[in-house]
Amino acid sequence: MTIRVAIAGARGKMGKEAVHTVMNNDEMELVAVLDYKEIGRTLADTNLFPSHYTVPVFIDLQELHTITKPDVLLDLTTPEFVYEHTKQALELNIRAVVGTTGFSDEQLEELKTLSKASKIGCIIAPNFAIGAVLMMKFAEQAAKYLPDIEIIEMHHDQKLDAPSGTAMKTAHLISQQRPIYQQGHIREKETLPGARGANYDGMRIHSVRLPGLVAHQQVLLGGEGQLLTLRHDSFNRGSFMSGVVLSIKTVMEKEELIYGLEHIID
Amino acid sequence: MTIRVAIAGARGKMGKEAVHTVMNNDEMELVAVLDYKEIGRTLADTNLFPSHYTVPVFIDLQELHTITKPDVLLDLTTPEFVYEHTKQALELNIRAVVGTTGFSDEQLEELKTLSKASKIGCIIAPNFAIGAVLMMKFAEQAAKYLPDIEIIEMHHDQKLDAPSGTAMKTAHLISQQRPIYQQGHIREKETLPGARGANYDGMRIHSVRLPGLVAHQQVLLGGEGQLLTLRHDSFNRGSFMSGVVLSIKTVMEKEELIYGLEHIID
Amino acid sequence: MTIRVAIAGARGKMGKEAVHTVMNNDEMELVAVLDYKEIGRTLADTNLFPSHYTVPVFIDLQELHTITKPDVLLDLTTPEFVYEHTKQALELNIRAVVGTTGFSDEQLEELKTLSKASKIGCIIAPNFAIGAVLMMKFAEQAAKYLPDIEIIEMHHDQKLDAPSGTAMKTAHLISQQRPIYQQGHIREKETLPGARGANYDGMRIHSVRLPGLVAHQQVLLGGEGQLLTLRHDSFNRGSFMSGVVLSIKTVMEKEELIYGLEHIID
Amino acid sequence: MTIRVAIAGARGKMGKEAVHTVMNNDEMELVAVLDYKEIGRTLADTNLFPSHYTVPVFIDLQELHTITKPDVLLDLTTPEFVYEHTKQALELNIRAVVGTTGFSDEQLEELKTLSKASKIGCIIAPNFAIGAVLMMKFAEQAAKYLPDIEIIEMHHDQKLDAPSGTAMKTAHLISQQRPIYQQGHIREKETLPGARGANYDGMRIHSVRLPGLVAHQQVLLGGEGQLLTLRHDSFNRGSFMSGVVLSIKTVMEKEELIYGLEHIID
Repeated sequence: MTIRVAIAGARGKMGKEAVHTVMNNDEMELVAVLDYKEIGRTLADTNLFPSHYTVPVFIDLQELHTITKPDVLLDLTTPEFVYEHTKQALELNIRAVVGTTGFSDEQLEELKTLSKASKIGCIIAPNFAIGAVLMMKFAEQAAKYLPDIEIIEMHHDQKLDAPSGTAMKTAHLISQQRPIYQQGHIREKETLPGARGANYDGMRIHSVRLPGLVAHQQVLLGGEGQLLTLRHDSFNRGSFMSGVVLSIKTVMEKEELIYGLEHIID
Repeated sequence: MTIRVAIAGARGKMGKEAVHTVMNNDEMELVAVLDYKEIGRTLADTNLFPSHYTVPVFIDLQELHTITKPDVLLDLTTPEFVYEHTKQALELNIRAVVGTTGFSDEQLEELKTLSKASKIGCIIAPNFAIGAVLMMKFAEQAAKYLPDIEIIEMHHDQKLDAPSGTAMKTAHLISQQRPIYQQGHIREKETLPGARGANYDGMRIHSVRLPGLVAHQQVLLGGEGQLLTLRHDSFNRGSFMSGVVLSIKTVMEKEELIYGLEHIID
Repeated sequence: MTIRVAIAGARGKMGKEAVHTVMNNDEMELVAVLDYKEIGRTLADTNLFPSHYTVPVFIDLQELHTITKPDVLLDLTTPEFVYEHTKQALELNIRAVVGTTGFSDEQLEELKTLSKASKIGCIIAPNFAIGAVLMMKFAEQAAKYLPDIEIIEMHHDQKLDAPSGTAMKTAHLISQQRPIYQQGHIREKETLPGARGANYDGMRIHSVRLPGLVAHQQVLLGGEGQLLTLRHDSFNRGSFMSGVVLSIKTVMEKEELIYGLEHIID
Repeated sequence: MTIRVAIAGARGKMGKEAVHTVMNNDEMELVAVLDYKEIGRTLADTNLFPSHYTVPVFIDLQELHTITKPDVLLDLTTPEFVYEHTKQALELNIRAVVGTTGFSDEQLEELKTLSKASKIGCIIAPNFAIGAVLMMKFAEQAAKYLPDIEIIEMHHDQKLDAPSGTAMKTAHLISQQRPIYQQGHIREKETLPGARGANYDGMRIHSVRLPGLVAHQQVLLGGEGQLLTLRHDSFNRGSFMSGVVLSIKTVMEKEELIYGLEHIID
């Protein structure tokens, strides 16, 4: 059975990739696009897509639903729209796949209740890169057996914050699997301050920033005579598309809200 | 409670490491050593160990058992001895941890039955390096989501066979999680034969052999815009010791035979 | 002094990057563009560039020269045009920087003679990625001291040929610095054919092809107890721009033809 | 011609390795060993070496010289002895290869003068690992073209100081090839202090400490769209032996004192 997909946010960077991904996937059909303003009758009219992308554009989700009957709404819009979209989708019995982190706890709770009551699946994924999610999951698993861990994350030099969100999340997950303790030698000494990196519950995190880099992370787990390295390289936005596809397929079989791709990967 | 450990094969390379490991572990006591010939009254008499290693040496497991009451027999001997040792240990209600691959299917079956009947745990581990076992397990898990995979294993240039046993086992595990298909471009062409490596069910395996290298493997899993790398470096024989310790602890809670460290790691 | 640059091939993939690079470089000015057909009065008219890119477009190099007086012609066109452009540029006393491999030996010889006679510098670079050129140069230097070498090159799975041109060139350079001999153990055996990779004068080359990868190469040099790894990752076309800039600056000080970026790097 | 070698410090860790290396090298002969106390008539008498290592042991360099006529004295002793040995060797017209950093500036100056006057070569090498020396040399060369650099050094967790001496020396060499400037985004912010590592003239150095690691360093050089990585792994003490052999061969052709392996590598 072909999955009928509608996309909200099709003109954004992620959205454009997603449009191509769904268009080229044999198991899916892109039946409609939701926008917040008039942008033309079809995607092709926007001049952002090839002329055979004649997918109809709607500005009202109710009307979109009545006419095109989507199974899934893939929402890649900004936090200000995404809550209303998701709520409305679930009420219309459209499953939702959402790629944002912008929900309040209350909103999330409400969507969970709504999804459970209506048995309409919903997947919310702060990170669609399956490889990154696997890296974090494996780090968490391995920490039980190789608890001495350092994280090196590497990004382009235009990134402002260090450590990255992914590094912080990885450290948090690991920290729940091992006792908090200071790694390294008890008398170790920094002759240049900062050399040993940031300290997260005794683990060390190092942030590299260089022109040319995109988004990379390695988790190093050391044990007597050995080293286990879990590394993820994200080379471009396409890295999110495998997670988008997996989520769309998986949400078809779910009857509740799932937060985080790690919970649909076994 | 301190675990009372006996070691068979204490004078071998692995055995010597294991003796030190157990001697230095607070949760264990090395109560006896089993040898096949007279080598002295205690380990210290062999001149292979420090003079305070006054662990008694036996050449008969029955006598060793009567006098020293071990909880676990760690067997690091060669295939010709290991089956008899293990069988006898289980019959004497001594749990067994065995590091060899030299069992016939019949022997393995018999030990399984014996272990189950007596509810005396037994762990047989072809590979004690926890990091390597985790790498294989993670590769198997990740293959469902990122099925395009190549393996690069790297060893010292005195190794005779290529690919390594670990690479073959990794490929075998992965192959059970993904359809068999030819990776790479359908019209890809080797201008120098062998460039694309060995073909295992469509996956590629590359074997690097250089002086200086010890034992290393990386599993590369590629997806749109991303790469997940799982790498294990074994720098010396010490890499096996964490698996030895884990096995000794775990076998205390088991009532059956377990083959492969991957089954005691969750 | 600002270097006055003209670009031929501005509408190609490399050309577009180069236009932006020169426009944003404080030490250069983009004074003209050479095209083979009418595309508008200025770059902005092509709709391929921002509206303030009002660089005049010419279809005749003589006229371009008379009006805009460039110091350097950066030629990123195809082999069919590039020889004529370069010859004419040198005759007009315009220095040339050329990014192609499409010259015949005779053409190259003629340009060399022309450049030398007129003392007008010319740089021809088959590979503008400085990092890749450095990797090759270093591999060549290191091979004298660590002659046991394997090359692993990794590209996206749409690449047809294996090994890559860069890997072949690297192996060729190394081979001139070390005796030809078979690496690895004399009795080594492939249990799966191809595992040990392609054989180039005794060195081994391994070609990895996976979706997600862009263009990567590592040269591994092993010696007793140690490994030296030289690795280059090319993440996108921008990797060529540092070489373009270096070539434009360097050609200003040259009075002859130089083939290959490795000869302007010391 | 076979090079006649004498070794001082043969019973130390490095010394033992060096004895085996010279004994197994076809182009060299180990003719004598210098010790500071009576340890037996030959190396074999010390029980530290095989019984066929019947190399005579001396406690006086003058006597050693008279009887065994070495071409080269390889000195692997401690700083307190090494200056006297080297001085005496040069005076006896024995070339010297020295692996220590313990000279004062005055001593070094004196040895230089002595070596030059007598035209007896002398090589002093703080680091005999050729791979590490090459890595530093290449980092220095590449910094001119790819000046944005971070260093990640990784050692076992028993190492006390961070960054390592090799990382500091690498940073120092690089710093002489590029202007001092702050890398990364001008508004970059550490949300956990230390994440961005140590700051050396604007470059960043990160020190990883984990059990299992030996001694590893990578120098990352980023440029638009690309990354060049220079990595050295030292797996054991054997990594120094290639530098020892190279130094012994090279010192035969030198008529002055050379400080640092980088100056005999071209």
